[in-house]
Amino acid sequence: MNRFLDLADFSREEVLDLISLAQHLEKHPEPQALAGKILGLVFFNPSLRTLSSFQVGMMRLGGSSFVITPGQGTWQLETRTGAVMNGGAAEHVREGLPVLASYADALGIRAFAEGKDLQYDLAETAFKAMASVVDKPLINLESAVNHPCQALADWKTLEDRHVPQRAKFVLSWANHPRVTPLAVPAATVHMAAQRGMEVVVLRPEGYALPPEIMDKARAAAATSGGSVTETTDRATAMQGAHILYAKEWGSTAHYGDAAADAALRANLSDWCVRESWFDTAAADCKFMHCLPVRRNVAVADDILDGPRSIVLQEAYNRLPAQMAVLHRLLSTGVSQR
Amino acid sequence: MNRFLDLADFSREEVLDLISLAQHLEKHPEPQALAGKILGLVFFNPSLRTLSSFQVGMMRLGGSSFVITPGQGTWQLETRTGAVMNGGAAEHVREGLPVLASYADALGIRAFAEGKDLQYDLAETAFKAMASVVDKPLINLESAVNHPCQALADWKTLEDRHVPQRAKFVLSWANHPRVTPLAVPAATVHMAAQRGMEVVVLRPEGYALPPEIMDKARAAAATSGGSVTETTDRATAMQGAHILYAKEWGSTAHYGDAAADAALRANLSDWCVRESWFDTAAADCKFMHCLPVRRNVAVADDILDGPRSIVLQEAYNRLPAQMAVLHRLLSTGVSQR
Amino acid sequence: MNRFLDLADFSREEVLDLISLAQHLEKHPEPQALAGKILGLVFFNPSLRTLSSFQVGMMRLGGSSFVITPGQGTWQLETRTGAVMNGGAAEHVREGLPVLASYADALGIRAFAEGKDLQYDLAETAFKAMASVVDKPLINLESAVNHPCQALADWKTLEDRHVPQRAKFVLSWANHPRVTPLAVPAATVHMAAQRGMEVVVLRPEGYALPPEIMDKARAAAATSGGSVTETTDRATAMQGAHILYAKEWGSTAHYGDAAADAALRANLSDWCVRESWFDTAAADCKFMHCLPVRRNVAVADDILDGPRSIVLQEAYNRLPAQMAVLHRLLSTGVSQR
Repeated sequence: MNRFLDLADFSREEVLDLISLAQHLEKHPEPQALAGKILGLVFFNPSLRTLSSFQVGMMRLGGSSFVITPGQGTWQLETRTGAVMNGGAAEHVREGLPVLASYADALGIRAFAEGKDLQYDLAETAFKAMASVVDKPLINLESAVNHPCQALADWKTLEDRHVPQRAKFVLSWANHPRVTPLAVPAATVHMAAQRGMEVVVLRPEGYALPPEIMDKARAAAATSGGSVTETTDRATAMQGAHILYAKEWGSTAHYGDAAADAALRANLSDWCVRESWFDTAAADCKFMHCLPVRRNVAVADDILDGPRSIVLQEAYNRLPAQMAVLHRLLSTGVSQR
Repeated sequence: MNRFLDLADFSREEVLDLISLAQHLEKHPEPQALAGKILGLVFFNPSLRTLSSFQVGMMRLGGSSFVITPGQGTWQLETRTGAVMNGGAAEHVREGLPVLASYADALGIRAFAEGKDLQYDLAETAFKAMASVVDKPLINLESAVNHPCQALADWKTLEDRHVPQRAKFVLSWANHPRVTPLAVPAATVHMAAQRGMEVVVLRPEGYALPPEIMDKARAAAATSGGSVTETTDRATAMQGAHILYAKEWGSTAHYGDAAADAALRANLSDWCVRESWFDTAAADCKFMHCLPVRRNVAVADDILDGPRSIVLQEAYNRLPAQMAVLHRLLSTGVSQR
Repeated sequence: MNRFLDLADFSREEVLDLISLAQHLEKHPEPQALAGKILGLVFFNPSLRTLSSFQVGMMRLGGSSFVITPGQGTWQLETRTGAVMNGGAAEHVREGLPVLASYADALGIRAFAEGKDLQYDLAETAFKAMASVVDKPLINLESAVNHPCQALADWKTLEDRHVPQRAKFVLSWANHPRVTPLAVPAATVHMAAQRGMEVVVLRPEGYALPPEIMDKARAAAATSGGSVTETTDRATAMQGAHILYAKEWGSTAHYGDAAADAALRANLSDWCVRESWFDTAAADCKFMHCLPVRRNVAVADDILDGPRSIVLQEAYNRLPAQMAVLHRLLSTGVSQR
């Protein structure tokens, strides 16, 4: 394994094997597995879980890491090809990233969607341009329309809890004060489909996921035996649901138009997850969210603080899931399993 | 020992035992004592000594650490209970801190006073709300009205220099261009009282420490055999003093009112410590300050650069003092003393 | 070796010996050479290569490091002697740096030129004031008019590529949207002269390097058998050149006057390095730049992406070159060469 950029690059069995390695490392720590190995972490955008769990993951495997945050302590980095660099960015990723790769044994890069041109973002234009100049193992720490580390941790959470493969998994839009990216909903719908679940995307008008994202998830479902549908009707979606996974994202009908998006969501304040949402769900329906979450805007306090929530387990699982990825990318020893 | 939040949680003998461990570690390094242990450091506010000495302390004991700075590279974190999070903060400490704790073996948190409501700050409302959601060993890196790591380092400095237990210790207000918190004066007056010293708080009108802080220090003095008094008269305070500990803090008569505070301190420019302050002090009276210090506003150059100053020794002592705390919180081995 | 502040502090042979150690460490890693050693890194200005390569260098030698960025997570630090500190800076370097030095085994400091007073900057006034209060091994991570780590890495690059000692080395001014410091051109002209090369400084009117910098380089050339000349004529300079080293710097005729500098460089847009510059150069003339570089302002894409460019090799060489410096400063063992 040389890159971890998208769960879709792996078969269902390969993902389950990664999760199995993650579970193994939880029970049988390997504090020297990555001794002497160095991970460079480049964050074009804020982070809490990714920032801390990758550093900790390297430490727990005996390796180390360094963090670069363009524009904060280091230069702003230009990503556009052919740019005449007379603006704010002092350095281009075509120099910056190969240099960092030359110091490290692997790189991780976080670069959110620009949020202006949907096709540009769906094509992962910026991330692919960066990935093309890195000749070391590379990890996607969240790109325009993907977040494979989150998806892997979420999948592990479902395995840890023995959620049936065919259980009903509802991915619901939730409200937010601002436009947010498509990366997590795109990764989540694909992950649940690839796992073989009965996936329903619940979202208001104007917030349909792009066809490219839905089609990719449906292709995964076709292989795994799952299904992917979508609806605007909450009652239909939640009927018999085993998992409600909430996430905020921007209007795809008004991509790049923050004012139109704001006008649309002004009437959507009831898209804040509350206990009443679960009336027709399975009795032990659990609540998932990738975090960070806006309390009492996207999700009510009583859900986050109540027994349905498994958001902290998801967040914790970032650590072992990523340790498995790092182990596969960087360990030179034979697996001790 | 599972938490290090306040020197008042420990008896005088327990504090002296921590200091003894710190002195031991200086002479007998234990570079593997915390091998594999990871400390998460969360800084809501700026830091120099705490930021560097905790990282170094973990390194010198064979462990490692990571730093999270809300709002700089990571999300702003909300601390208010029940908040409707439609503002700047993307995440609540009720999620953020348990997540970080789940990755680490211990957390340290710095969160200065809000400086708006004195009772809110005196009650350590924000810090206690955060501490309540952390289920790992926890260190107070400076809260609204406490700074136990500074107090422990200062106490060690007094021990290292063999300052007599009953010596006169003057905590004096000093000027500053802005309102600053009560954490260090509160921790300092308590530390000196708990050590059993003759403590005098010297401050201008309007800058009396709150009764809650003075009463807590007096209770400590009652147990240790020390005393705590206060005065606005510099000559009285400094008469026979062995230690002058200067610190800036905001007006408690005008708490949360920066304009009234500024008007009050406009006439207090002579509260900049100079050699003349020491005319009636003990001949070898030493000068202490927790740093950072505003030269020639709070303290004159000649004091900081002269033989009375032991501020660098205090700052250095942050390292061994905190190494003792970390050793107690995280070492699983038998003490090698 | 106790300080690494200026290549001019070392003989040509001593520099070559450092480079030899760097080359040795590339082939024969010493992952425990600096076990237990801690480097403190203080960055008053942005960095990418220095920030990452020093952290990685310590890791690869078994040591560790911490990073302090005044004004970002830590206090702004005052550097002026005798300042009345009632402005933005909460702490003076006279306290801050000795404190950090007391925690670490060595410090590195980056502090760019103020860019207001040429004589103040040429005298390294600020850096020298800081160096004077640090009693541990110290590394110059770029000061007002020096960047010895870059110079050492560049020299190593010339050795790695077997560039003849007497080859023609052209240091050319290049355009930039803003005024930038003299540190790299000053270090580069001296490095190439000290190596014994035929050095030509090519720059437009108004951008002559100060006599102090040129004289220092000429003194080095006198010892090494090299030469240093300057010209405004590109064709003359490039005739037979083996190396073109481009760098942006501010007008010395208008030092501290950004408006006059901008007016001057408005007509200098052809000082963007292109293939046509190399018409009369040696056939395999290579292109060097310290990075970061403004693409299509200072250097055209086709040069940076083409076969002449060795900028990534230069940047990579920061790592082994600095590992040699760290080894000399901090290793207590006998060299294993």
